Amino acid sequence: MEIYGDSVSGNCLKVKWTANHLGHDYLWIETSVLNGETRTPAFLAMNPAGQVPLIRLDDGRTLAQSNAIITFLAEGSALIPSDSFDRARMFEWMFWEQYSHEPYVAVARFQMRYLGKPASALEARIVERGKAALARLDAALESRPFLVAEAPTLADIALVAYSRVADEGGFALADYPAMLSWIGRVEQALKIPAREGAPL
Amino acid sequence: MEIYGDSVSGNCLKVKWTANHLGHDYLWIETSVLNGETRTPAFLAMNPAGQVPLIRLDDGRTLAQSNAIITFLAEGSALIPSDSFDRARMFEWMFWEQYSHEPYVAVARFQMRYLGKPASALEARIVERGKAALARLDAALESRPFLVAEAPTLADIALVAYSRVADEGGFALADYPAMLSWIGRVEQALKIPAREGAPL
Repeated sequence: MEIYGDSVSGNCLKVKWTANHLGHDYLWIETSVLNGETRTPAFLAMNPAGQVPLIRLDDGRTLAQSNAIITFLAEGSALIPSDSFDRARMFEWMFWEQYSHEPYVAVARFQMRYLGKPASALEARIVERGKAALARLDAALESRPFLVAEAPTLADIALVAYSRVADEGGFALADYPAMLSWIGRVEQALKIPAREGAPL
Repeated sequence: MEIYGDSVSGNCLKVKWTANHLGHDYLWIETSVLNGETRTPAFLAMNPAGQVPLIRLDDGRTLAQSNAIITFLAEGSALIPSDSFDRARMFEWMFWEQYSHEPYVAVARFQMRYLGKPASALEARIVERGKAALARLDAALESRPFLVAEAPTLADIALVAYSRVADEGGFALADYPAMLSWIGRVEQALKIPAREGAPL
């Protein structure tokens, strides 16, 4: 299997962490979004949406969308709860991540870190909704070690990806203490190198 | 089971259509977003995200996020492909819908229909990305009857919800002929009343 990913993208790191944790064999093909490598004709032929991460199976079939990819890779593993309601909760968090967390927390980070915007130039809507997303996560983690079960699931992988680097988008991690300790637990459980994907 | 939903929301209608198609028993509790009924203390206690749709099971447990709810309701049914790669493709479309389709196609419609904005006042970014999403859908449907398999899956339900009313957001459905005939096929297969959720 080939994984096309940009090492500074939380969405791409989700796939790498899941594949590593489960011991999948893969070839990582570094694909830079900022250099336009997801917009070449060759890449668009593999993924018309022009987005990484993307996996290509040995038979040539391709699959996009980070949360769909990690669901596919983790089938039958302990990263997906066997209880049907817990599994539904896991998907609830994963869809919420893509709709209510990533578009604010990751976008603020992208604009500050990659486009060089100062925090004061971020759109107020992005800052407010990013804070609301982190506050919701923090509240949910006050009473439990992981989002869905007693051990990490794909929901934790999906949500930790941009939460752990939210400070690069101007969000103060210390304002979310329950979230902060959860980040440490997820990193430890998945053996994620400290600050992988963070600035060198 | 109770379904809290706003009948003019495509996200809520996905849940209704899926429950109807599969013959689930439920009580529909009309919950108006515009009237603030998703922001009351009682509602926020059920869903801290303050969003519909939401389902409440007989034992009191609640579940949010339209695509997570329909996945839960459809477990074991023909709406979820049994082949693991087809299932992954279904999730790919569903995550893409929430990230790259709904925030443009549904938001344009919301601003025009509910906030009374003229098409000319929509943000250019929303219009462009909405068109790109519909074009991608149209291209994918040129060579196949449904998004993933020979019969409808949850991917079709998720994507048809706002595509069928995209004209209310200023998008010309006739520009996407393959998508337009697919809308008819999905409506027929799921017995969706013509223009349910559309203006009276």
